[in-house]
Amino acid sequence: MLRRFCWAATLSLLAVVLWVWDVSWAQDAKALEKSVGDLRVAVDTVWVMVTGFLVFWMHAGFAMLESGMCRAKNAVAILYKNFGVVAVSSIAFWIIGFALMFGDGNPLIGWKGYFLIGPDNSPAMGKAYEGIFSSLNWAGIPLYAKFFFQLVFAATAATIVSGCVAERIRFSTFMIFSFLLVAVIYPIQGHWVWGGGWLSALGFVDFAGSTVVHSVGGWAGLAGILVLGPRLGKYGPDGKMYPIPGHNMAMVTLGGFILWLGWFGFNPGSTLAAAPDDIARIAVTTNLSAASGVVASSLFSRIFFGKPDLSMSVNGALAGLVAITAPCANVTPLGAVIIGLGAGVLVCLSVPFLDRVKVDDPVGAVSVHLVCGIYGTLAVGLFASPTINKEVVGFFYGGGVSLLVKQLTGVVAVGALTFVLSYILWQLARPIVGLRVEPEAELAGLDLTEHGMEAYPEEALAR
Amino acid sequence: MLRRFCWAATLSLLAVVLWVWDVSWAQDAKALEKSVGDLRVAVDTVWVMVTGFLVFWMHAGFAMLESGMCRAKNAVAILYKNFGVVAVSSIAFWIIGFALMFGDGNPLIGWKGYFLIGPDNSPAMGKAYEGIFSSLNWAGIPLYAKFFFQLVFAATAATIVSGCVAERIRFSTFMIFSFLLVAVIYPIQGHWVWGGGWLSALGFVDFAGSTVVHSVGGWAGLAGILVLGPRLGKYGPDGKMYPIPGHNMAMVTLGGFILWLGWFGFNPGSTLAAAPDDIARIAVTTNLSAASGVVASSLFSRIFFGKPDLSMSVNGALAGLVAITAPCANVTPLGAVIIGLGAGVLVCLSVPFLDRVKVDDPVGAVSVHLVCGIYGTLAVGLFASPTINKEVVGFFYGGGVSLLVKQLTGVVAVGALTFVLSYILWQLARPIVGLRVEPEAELAGLDLTEHGMEAYPEEALAR
Amino acid sequence: MLRRFCWAATLSLLAVVLWVWDVSWAQDAKALEKSVGDLRVAVDTVWVMVTGFLVFWMHAGFAMLESGMCRAKNAVAILYKNFGVVAVSSIAFWIIGFALMFGDGNPLIGWKGYFLIGPDNSPAMGKAYEGIFSSLNWAGIPLYAKFFFQLVFAATAATIVSGCVAERIRFSTFMIFSFLLVAVIYPIQGHWVWGGGWLSALGFVDFAGSTVVHSVGGWAGLAGILVLGPRLGKYGPDGKMYPIPGHNMAMVTLGGFILWLGWFGFNPGSTLAAAPDDIARIAVTTNLSAASGVVASSLFSRIFFGKPDLSMSVNGALAGLVAITAPCANVTPLGAVIIGLGAGVLVCLSVPFLDRVKVDDPVGAVSVHLVCGIYGTLAVGLFASPTINKEVVGFFYGGGVSLLVKQLTGVVAVGALTFVLSYILWQLARPIVGLRVEPEAELAGLDLTEHGMEAYPEEALAR
Repeated sequence: MLRRFCWAATLSLLAVVLWVWDVSWAQDAKALEKSVGDLRVAVDTVWVMVTGFLVFWMHAGFAMLESGMCRAKNAVAILYKNFGVVAVSSIAFWIIGFALMFGDGNPLIGWKGYFLIGPDNSPAMGKAYEGIFSSLNWAGIPLYAKFFFQLVFAATAATIVSGCVAERIRFSTFMIFSFLLVAVIYPIQGHWVWGGGWLSALGFVDFAGSTVVHSVGGWAGLAGILVLGPRLGKYGPDGKMYPIPGHNMAMVTLGGFILWLGWFGFNPGSTLAAAPDDIARIAVTTNLSAASGVVASSLFSRIFFGKPDLSMSVNGALAGLVAITAPCANVTPLGAVIIGLGAGVLVCLSVPFLDRVKVDDPVGAVSVHLVCGIYGTLAVGLFASPTINKEVVGFFYGGGVSLLVKQLTGVVAVGALTFVLSYILWQLARPIVGLRVEPEAELAGLDLTEHGMEAYPEEALAR
Repeated sequence: MLRRFCWAATLSLLAVVLWVWDVSWAQDAKALEKSVGDLRVAVDTVWVMVTGFLVFWMHAGFAMLESGMCRAKNAVAILYKNFGVVAVSSIAFWIIGFALMFGDGNPLIGWKGYFLIGPDNSPAMGKAYEGIFSSLNWAGIPLYAKFFFQLVFAATAATIVSGCVAERIRFSTFMIFSFLLVAVIYPIQGHWVWGGGWLSALGFVDFAGSTVVHSVGGWAGLAGILVLGPRLGKYGPDGKMYPIPGHNMAMVTLGGFILWLGWFGFNPGSTLAAAPDDIARIAVTTNLSAASGVVASSLFSRIFFGKPDLSMSVNGALAGLVAITAPCANVTPLGAVIIGLGAGVLVCLSVPFLDRVKVDDPVGAVSVHLVCGIYGTLAVGLFASPTINKEVVGFFYGGGVSLLVKQLTGVVAVGALTFVLSYILWQLARPIVGLRVEPEAELAGLDLTEHGMEAYPEEALAR
Repeated sequence: MLRRFCWAATLSLLAVVLWVWDVSWAQDAKALEKSVGDLRVAVDTVWVMVTGFLVFWMHAGFAMLESGMCRAKNAVAILYKNFGVVAVSSIAFWIIGFALMFGDGNPLIGWKGYFLIGPDNSPAMGKAYEGIFSSLNWAGIPLYAKFFFQLVFAATAATIVSGCVAERIRFSTFMIFSFLLVAVIYPIQGHWVWGGGWLSALGFVDFAGSTVVHSVGGWAGLAGILVLGPRLGKYGPDGKMYPIPGHNMAMVTLGGFILWLGWFGFNPGSTLAAAPDDIARIAVTTNLSAASGVVASSLFSRIFFGKPDLSMSVNGALAGLVAITAPCANVTPLGAVIIGLGAGVLVCLSVPFLDRVKVDDPVGAVSVHLVCGIYGTLAVGLFASPTINKEVVGFFYGGGVSLLVKQLTGVVAVGALTFVLSYILWQLARPIVGLRVEPEAELAGLDLTEHGMEAYPEEALAR
């Protein structure tokens, strides 16, 4: 009896010890798992915030590039537009844009989450999703981080427009247009592609926004150019084109460097996670495409225009960057080089072509952002390599034309929406708030007439 | 007997197996825990270093903004001050400033850790704290990372002064003042607020330094302005004010962009940890306040001054940024927008007011950093939301005036200390090292007389 | 019998339970370990990418600094070279440079991995290494991340040359030279030091590239200067030296700030891992050396040249940064200050000395990058502190001259290789592609003659 009791006691003790160990291990393991999950969110958030800061920095690049490519008498006007558009976009996207783009809704539009109000629990929090931003649920970072990153993208689309309409648009008209672009137009097509809308369901691939950001900016700007008409003095009475050089190539080059740097946020950051293999490969493809754009545009301008042209080369870099934005995550380094070379040539063809058809784009933004945005989006359908993602295969890797057709569909749909809505807005602006400054004001320069100041006042420069 | 032995052997074996397992699991778990802890330190350190780099970058922004707002003949002088002040501050803070600010001491001053010498074991190391920088013990990053981040903040306070006293101060006097500001004045009040001093014990809240950094720079600069007097030609013999425009608005705008970007280090980095929710929310509030500052100052200048004024808008962005610096971690996006709108209006009122009372501040630094620094510090007491921290509740959220009174106490105490000590230093400088350049030198420009060079020499610009 | 069966059943059950627990714990632990390992790679990769972006940004700094120090008529030419060299270097390093530098080979050269093709499994992947980049196997980040970081370093070496040969070199000649420098010369010596070659086996220490990057750029540039000869007008017929001031000190200062910022990528990023203690300490030593360089050069120029000289101080900062690049990971803050002070004085001695011996270096690149690159490399042998690494001890810490001799060996070997090969290339360029622009072109400015444009066209500046 005693022996039996002994055994029973021993076994019970053993069971208790095991149970205690088990519970303690389970707690330890759970705590560790939670720490590791928290760290994952922390690393991803650090990455997304830092790359978001780099994208924010691109606005300084646009400001330098665009004002450098305009005349000194309009420098304040263009600087102010680039500076102010960040502010207006921030407010517009916070109030309504983010909700229309990423809030839950239907395949055409989102309609939840105005003012960023509403629940959001990312999967990283370890619960079933109960929020209203389902389309961003795949990213395990805080909602505010997603908002910040998307905001700086939205502002980029608006900033592109400022270059197209430079040196003749009224300040307040541009600001109102920017507000509406970021509040409504950009989010609608963005919802289609990135917000769980019909284009994403179709299989349209635009990783970081050749179409969603760059060609949208380009389409809106092109509509503005067509409604505004060319700058005074750009075309003579005989239709002859007179080049209007920019006033500061150092600012243009600085802007080019800033944008190139910012693109390392734009593309690798679009992972929304610190995925080591992806972010490193995307940075490499992004850089190689930019480099190839510079090489191609330098050689092209040297061969066909007589001398290597710095402004063409800066635009060549941007062309390569815009073009690689959609395919950056799906192509090999070799693919990136080919895409960049094509973009560099394309921009050198597009700039003089647009000049010839009297589309007066002072900074070449249509050629860079619209033409190369379309080209880059289609390039996914041509160069996407199955070694990276077996589901996304371009024509030259044996994927047939199916992906290419989807890409074309997206290009056309987004382009039609953006161009038509923008065109209507620009036309409405004319009678309501006024569109273009008076001819005398344009001749005197917008700095004096619109802002009552000069960028480089004589008396401040005097020795 | 044999059977009993068998059972005993089995149980013993079991026990040994269990014990071995337990030890091995315990070791595994411990090693994992250490790896996770190390990773936490690594992530936090990466975040703090990168945000520290962004704050360092702000010095380039101050250099561009301030020199753009001054005349070309003083450009070298102001660039040099902004460049040199980083160097002088680095040395001063390393030798003595950091020790006075964060070294162990009493509620009024720290006095340990000169030359950064002394033990420091952060809690992340898993030991009881045995160091001499107890006030920074809450942050689990290496001491050098804490020092680096705090250093770039200290240098910011000094740089603000350079704008106030621009175009008339002697170079060496400014450098000596900067050394003493960063070595002594800045650290003493910083100790009060962030170094475990009496203001932190009181419950004064200044998350990222509206008071500690910005208003301190503003107070020291205001003292300098009062002692120096206005620039020659700013006020006529009849007391009439003559505006002195800056020489390069492109540099001003670039400076504004750099500072806006740098603030994403300044505010979100002040967490001293990669806390995902906090850093993302702080980046959003910071950006919304800056944006609102731009919108408010643009509209205000358009309505009341006739035309939207770019320099007002750049200062409006900075005003919003300075104002959100203290409350950034305690307000909602809506709160940030309200704070930013207020700051944008405030800076538009303050700049002409200071001009009228003959406080000649060439770049508007007093309006931006002092006025909005005070406003932002008080805004904590008005807008701090209990949804973020239940302990810190502003007046408009039902927190009564208790927090507001504490904030006011901090504003007055720090202001009195800084203004009085700075005033004394500036007055002492006059007889000892000389304060202001000669009138002929001021007319000729400080670049030639103080540095023997020009920023834009005629012969180098010649075609 | 039954009882025996009961016991046996109980024990068996216990064994099964234990076994199941064990397996499940083992799986949990393994999964956790893998998560932690993945996170470590993620954190390290984020750090390396972000610091790589900062190094990329340095190219903007070189562009601003160098063009600001040249005349306006050559601004496009120098901006274009700095912009284009990033592109050419990216292509060259991708095709061949990286393979020669880090691919498996012998102690003199690597020869595997052209076009970045080839296996790479870093130790972080938890397997025995089977790749072809063994020399980078110690770093647990993806191959593309290693490539990106090394690429921006390679481009830096090439960019340094552009300053030396500015205002007289032909555009295409410079681009071809840059291609060959990055494709062949830079990688060979880089293989010796960082690619597992004979200098690393010897114990030569160059943590972030005072020799590998900076002095290599300096040697290549010095060879170019000697082959090209001085700019027209620099020396009169009587041999008298005429200073040729740069056209924009604001750009020079901005460039200085950009480079200082970029160095926080250059040095702390060279850890190739987010090692908290190391990256924080390296950032501090880097900053203190730069600051000391500014202080020393400012005081030196004030005392010996009469007035504090901004261009000397910007170069003083860079001198301190170049000098600390090799020793940054092995010295204390005090050591960094001493090294920086020495560099600041050295650059003030070197610039006028080179002027006197008719080495016409428009931007002071030889003094900054070559002289201080050598000095910094030797400084490891003088100031390396055993408190950081017991294996690397400098002369002043009782390490004898053994390390100093190794450092000297590396300086001489790398210098001889680079100078001789560069000299041959420059001499070959003359008959093959042409070396220097025509004298009339040099007088008119390279912008018009080489690129058919102006940086600041009169008509764009007109009011």
